Amino acid sequence: MNNKPTPGVRFKDNRAEIAVWAPYAKKVAVIINDGTVIDLNTVAYGYWVLTTAALKPGDRYRFKLDDKMALPDPASLSQPNGVHGASMAIDINQFKWTDAAWQNPGLGQYVIYELHAGTFSPAGTFEGIAEKLGYLKQLGITAIEIMPVAQFPGGRNWGYDGVFPYAVQNTYGGAEGLAKLVNICHKQGIAVILDVVYNHFGPEGNYMGIYGPYFTGKYHTPWGDAINFDDAWCDEVRHYFIQNVLMWFRDFHIDALRLDAVHAIKDFSAKHILKEIKENVDELMAQTGRKHHLIIEFDLNDPLFIDPIQKRGYGMDAQWIDEFHHALRVTAGEKRDGYYSDFEGIGHLAKAYNDAYVYDGIYSPGRLKTFGANANDNPGRQFIVFSQNHDHVGNRMLGERSSQLFGFEMQKLMAAAVMVSPFIPMLFMGEEWAESNPFQYFVSHTEPELVEAVRKGRKAEFASFHTDEEAPDPQAIATFERSKLQWDLPAKDGHKQMLSFYQALIRVRKQLPALAILDRKKLKTTVYEAGKILLLH
Amino acid sequence: MNNKPTPGVRFKDNRAEIAVWAPYAKKVAVIINDGTVIDLNTVAYGYWVLTTAALKPGDRYRFKLDDKMALPDPASLSQPNGVHGASMAIDINQFKWTDAAWQNPGLGQYVIYELHAGTFSPAGTFEGIAEKLGYLKQLGITAIEIMPVAQFPGGRNWGYDGVFPYAVQNTYGGAEGLAKLVNICHKQGIAVILDVVYNHFGPEGNYMGIYGPYFTGKYHTPWGDAINFDDAWCDEVRHYFIQNVLMWFRDFHIDALRLDAVHAIKDFSAKHILKEIKENVDELMAQTGRKHHLIIEFDLNDPLFIDPIQKRGYGMDAQWIDEFHHALRVTAGEKRDGYYSDFEGIGHLAKAYNDAYVYDGIYSPGRLKTFGANANDNPGRQFIVFSQNHDHVGNRMLGERSSQLFGFEMQKLMAAAVMVSPFIPMLFMGEEWAESNPFQYFVSHTEPELVEAVRKGRKAEFASFHTDEEAPDPQAIATFERSKLQWDLPAKDGHKQMLSFYQALIRVRKQLPALAILDRKKLKTTVYEAGKILLLH
Repeated sequence: MNNKPTPGVRFKDNRAEIAVWAPYAKKVAVIINDGTVIDLNTVAYGYWVLTTAALKPGDRYRFKLDDKMALPDPASLSQPNGVHGASMAIDINQFKWTDAAWQNPGLGQYVIYELHAGTFSPAGTFEGIAEKLGYLKQLGITAIEIMPVAQFPGGRNWGYDGVFPYAVQNTYGGAEGLAKLVNICHKQGIAVILDVVYNHFGPEGNYMGIYGPYFTGKYHTPWGDAINFDDAWCDEVRHYFIQNVLMWFRDFHIDALRLDAVHAIKDFSAKHILKEIKENVDELMAQTGRKHHLIIEFDLNDPLFIDPIQKRGYGMDAQWIDEFHHALRVTAGEKRDGYYSDFEGIGHLAKAYNDAYVYDGIYSPGRLKTFGANANDNPGRQFIVFSQNHDHVGNRMLGERSSQLFGFEMQKLMAAAVMVSPFIPMLFMGEEWAESNPFQYFVSHTEPELVEAVRKGRKAEFASFHTDEEAPDPQAIATFERSKLQWDLPAKDGHKQMLSFYQALIRVRKQLPALAILDRKKLKTTVYEAGKILLLH
Repeated sequence: MNNKPTPGVRFKDNRAEIAVWAPYAKKVAVIINDGTVIDLNTVAYGYWVLTTAALKPGDRYRFKLDDKMALPDPASLSQPNGVHGASMAIDINQFKWTDAAWQNPGLGQYVIYELHAGTFSPAGTFEGIAEKLGYLKQLGITAIEIMPVAQFPGGRNWGYDGVFPYAVQNTYGGAEGLAKLVNICHKQGIAVILDVVYNHFGPEGNYMGIYGPYFTGKYHTPWGDAINFDDAWCDEVRHYFIQNVLMWFRDFHIDALRLDAVHAIKDFSAKHILKEIKENVDELMAQTGRKHHLIIEFDLNDPLFIDPIQKRGYGMDAQWIDEFHHALRVTAGEKRDGYYSDFEGIGHLAKAYNDAYVYDGIYSPGRLKTFGANANDNPGRQFIVFSQNHDHVGNRMLGERSSQLFGFEMQKLMAAAVMVSPFIPMLFMGEEWAESNPFQYFVSHTEPELVEAVRKGRKAEFASFHTDEEAPDPQAIATFERSKLQWDLPAKDGHKQMLSFYQALIRVRKQLPALAILDRKKLKTTVYEAGKILLLH
C-alpha cells in the first residue's frame, strides 16, 4: 500500500506532486487556473500522476478525464468556491506547528465537549472556537470533538453531507484555520477529536463516481450504494480513506478521530477496513511517537469492533454508547417511541452501567431480532456516554435540547448520571448552561430539487407526530441562526447555576479516584424499581 | 431458541403438531386433503401452531394465509406432486434405523465421492445409489457426498434450484428413500455428506416471501435479495435453517453437511449464523453422542470461518479449496481465462500444497483487489481438494469432464496430485474410470418464461467463447440423459486401467502413514519451473 501515491496535491522541493485515481480513464489532464493543461501519466492500479513546477500553492486546478467536463479533485485540500468550484492547491506542510510539548492523554482522561463549528461561536469559525478555549478549560473539558468539517455544499450543514473528505470547509477557515485551532488547543492542554464520515458521501457535489468505482451495488445503505470497501478496485478506495486518516493525524495533529456510523461500512474482506486503518495508525504512531485514538459511532453491539487486533478484533479504541443515552432519557421521562421504544428505564440504565451494551445478545422488540453480544471484557475507557448529542437533539422535529424538555433538577441528575459513570463522559455544546436554543437540522444546498427533497423528507419523517407545529425548514437561514449558542446565557440566572454545577461535577470526577479511574468491575448497581432509585456503589 | 416450534409437521402420540411462521398474517388455516379447514393459533414471534388428530401421515395439506391462495408448507417434508402441489404429512420418526453400530470417522479419514442422485445410477434414485455401494467400497471411498436433494421443480436439476429445504426430492425417493440409503451406507461403513443450500432459493415454486420476511433488500446476491440472516425478524429465519441442519443430523443420520456458497450468506450480526449453527450442532452431538461435520463451500479465503469458536471463529470443520483445483488445472494445461486467469500453474500449485489458500492476503488481478488471509494454523483435514467437481465440469459450456480434456497420463497425474495432498481428497462421480460423458447443466422448470430465461442466460454466458458449438439446452431431456454415467465403461479398455489406478492410489493413501496423516507442516515442496516439476517431500 505504501508505495501508492497519496491522492491529491502535495508539494515537495517546490514542485507539485499530483495524483488522482481514475482507473477507467484513457487520458487524464490537469487544468491550472483555467489555462495551462498538462497530461498526467498513468501508473499501476489506475493512478495518474504528475510532478510539475507549473502548479503552485494558491493556484486553482481541476481534472479532465477523457477530455470531458473539468472536475474538482476528489482529494482536494481546499475548495475556496464550494463543492462545485475548482480545487485550490495548498502546501499542507507550510504551517508552523508550536505544539511539540503536547502529549495526547489516554482516553480515560478525556472529558469530551462535542461542538458544531458553525453554531458554537458567534463567528461560526475555527477562530471562533479558539476564542472560547479559555472558557472550556475553566469548565474542565479535556477534549473538544468537532463535528465533520469536510467541505459540504454552501455554508450551513451539520457536516454529514460532506463530499471532499480531504478538504476543510472553507467557511470555517479551511485547512489553515483548522491547523491553527489544533495548535492552540494543544498549547492550552486540550485534545482535538475530529468527526469523519467514511460510510457515505453527501448528495450534492459528489463527483467520486465519475472518477472510479468508489461505490458498490452489493450493499444497500440509507444513502444508496455503499462505499466500495470489498468489491473490485476496493484497494484504492481503502487507500483513499486510510491516507485520509493518516493526513488528519500526521498533518493536522488531530488527537482522535470519531468515525461516523461504521455499522454502515459494509466490508466482508478477510481484513476489515477498520482493522487496516488501525494497523496503519499503529505504524504512524511508531514512527512519530505521538498517540492517536480511533473512536467509532457504532450501533451493532459487537465487541469485535473494539477488541484489540491480538484478540482478533478490529482494534478500535472506543465507541459511542447510544444505549446508555436512550436508557437514561427514558428513565428521565422521555416518551418510549421511535428508538426509545426498546428501553424501559431504570433497569436498562443499570444494565448500561454494568454491561455497557443493554442489548448484548437478547431479543430486541424494536429490531424484531436478537441483538448484540456481551462486552464484559472491555474496559470502561472504551465507551463514550452522554445525556444528549447533536444526533439525538437534532433528530427531534424541533431539535429541542434537554433544557427545553426536562426541569432543572432532572437536567442536573442526567449530567451527574453521565459524570459518575465508569465510561468517558461527553457533553454537547451548551448543555452545561442549559442552552435554551434548539439544535435543528439545517442545510444549504444549491440544487433546488435537492433542497425540495430534503424539505419534504424532513416533513415526512415527522408526519406521524400529529403535532400542530411544522418541521422547521432545513434550508432556511433562520433555522441555522436559531441553532446557535447564546453566549450571554451563562451569565444569567438559572443558566449560571447549571454551569457551576457542571464545573463542580467535572472537578469531582477528576479528583475522586473512584470516578477518575474507569474500573467497570468495581461498580455495583442496585435498582429500587418502585421508587425509581438506582444506587451506584 | 429451543422453545420455538419446529416448522412443519411432526407426529407425537398420534397427533400432528403443526407449526408455520407467518408474522404478518391475521389468520392462518390448514386445509387437509382439500377438505377439512382448521384455524391455527397464533403464538409468540409470528408462529402459528396447532395440535390435531385430523391430520394423519399420508394426508395432503396446505396453508391459507388470511383466506388467500392455499400454499404448500415452507417446511414441508414431502412434495409428492412437485413444488406447486400440496404438501404431504409424513412421520419422520417412523423409519426403523439399524445403524446403531456406525461411527462417523474424523474428516481426516474421509475419501469423498461427490455424486448427483439423478445421473449417478441408471435408475437416478437413492435406491440406484444403494446398489452401487459395493462398487464404491471396492474403490476405497469412505464418504459419499450427495448433491442437493431439497425438492426442486420437475425431475431434472443439479439441486441448486431447490425451494423446499426440508423436503427430499420425490423423484429420488423422498425422505424414506434417503433414510434407507443412509442406513445402508452406514452398515457398509460409508459416511454420507449432504449438500444443502442456505444462501438462496430457486426461481420456481418459491413461496417463502408470501409467508414472511425470509429475504432482505439490504444485500444483493446473484439470486436477488439475500436471505434474511440479520434484518428484522431474522431470528425466525435463522431458526428455520438451524432446525433444518438439526433435522438432517438427528432424523436422517446424515454425517456431514456441505453448505453451499456460504460467502453468499450475508450476516453482520454479532453472532454469525454459521457460528450459531455450530453451537446448535455441538449441543446435539453432546445429547446424542454422534459426530457430525460441517463443511462449507467458501471462496473468501478467510480462516475466520473455519477457526474454532474458542479462537473466535465460526467453527466450521472444513471447507472446499477451489484454488487448489484451479492451480492444478492450469498446471495441467487449462487455458487461463475466466476464474483460471488468476492462476499461473506450478508455482501456485506448490503454494496451494503449502498454504491451502493461494490468495492469502496478496493482490488478485482477477478480482482487482487484495484478497484473503493466511490459514497456516489450520490443519490439512480442514481442506477438501479435487481435480474436478460438479461445478467446474458443469460450468463449462459443454460440461466436459477431465477425460474429454486431458490425456490419460495427465488424468492420472491429476488424480495423484489430489491423492498425495495433505488435504481431504474428493472425486467427482465417474472420474475414476475416465467417464467420457459430459456433466452438463440441466433443469426441468415448468414455467415457460423461466425456461426461456434460463436457456437465454446459459447462451449469453458462453456467447464470448466464440465457438461454433451451441450451449446445450438446459431444459432438454437429452441434456440430462447425456450427463449420466455409463456403467458399462469401467469394464472397457482404458477405463478399466484408470479405475485400477484410482483404486491403487486410494489404497496407497490409506496405507502410507505419510499420506494418511494429514500433517501440512511436514510437507515440503520444491518447484523446478523450467521442467514444470513439482517435488513434494
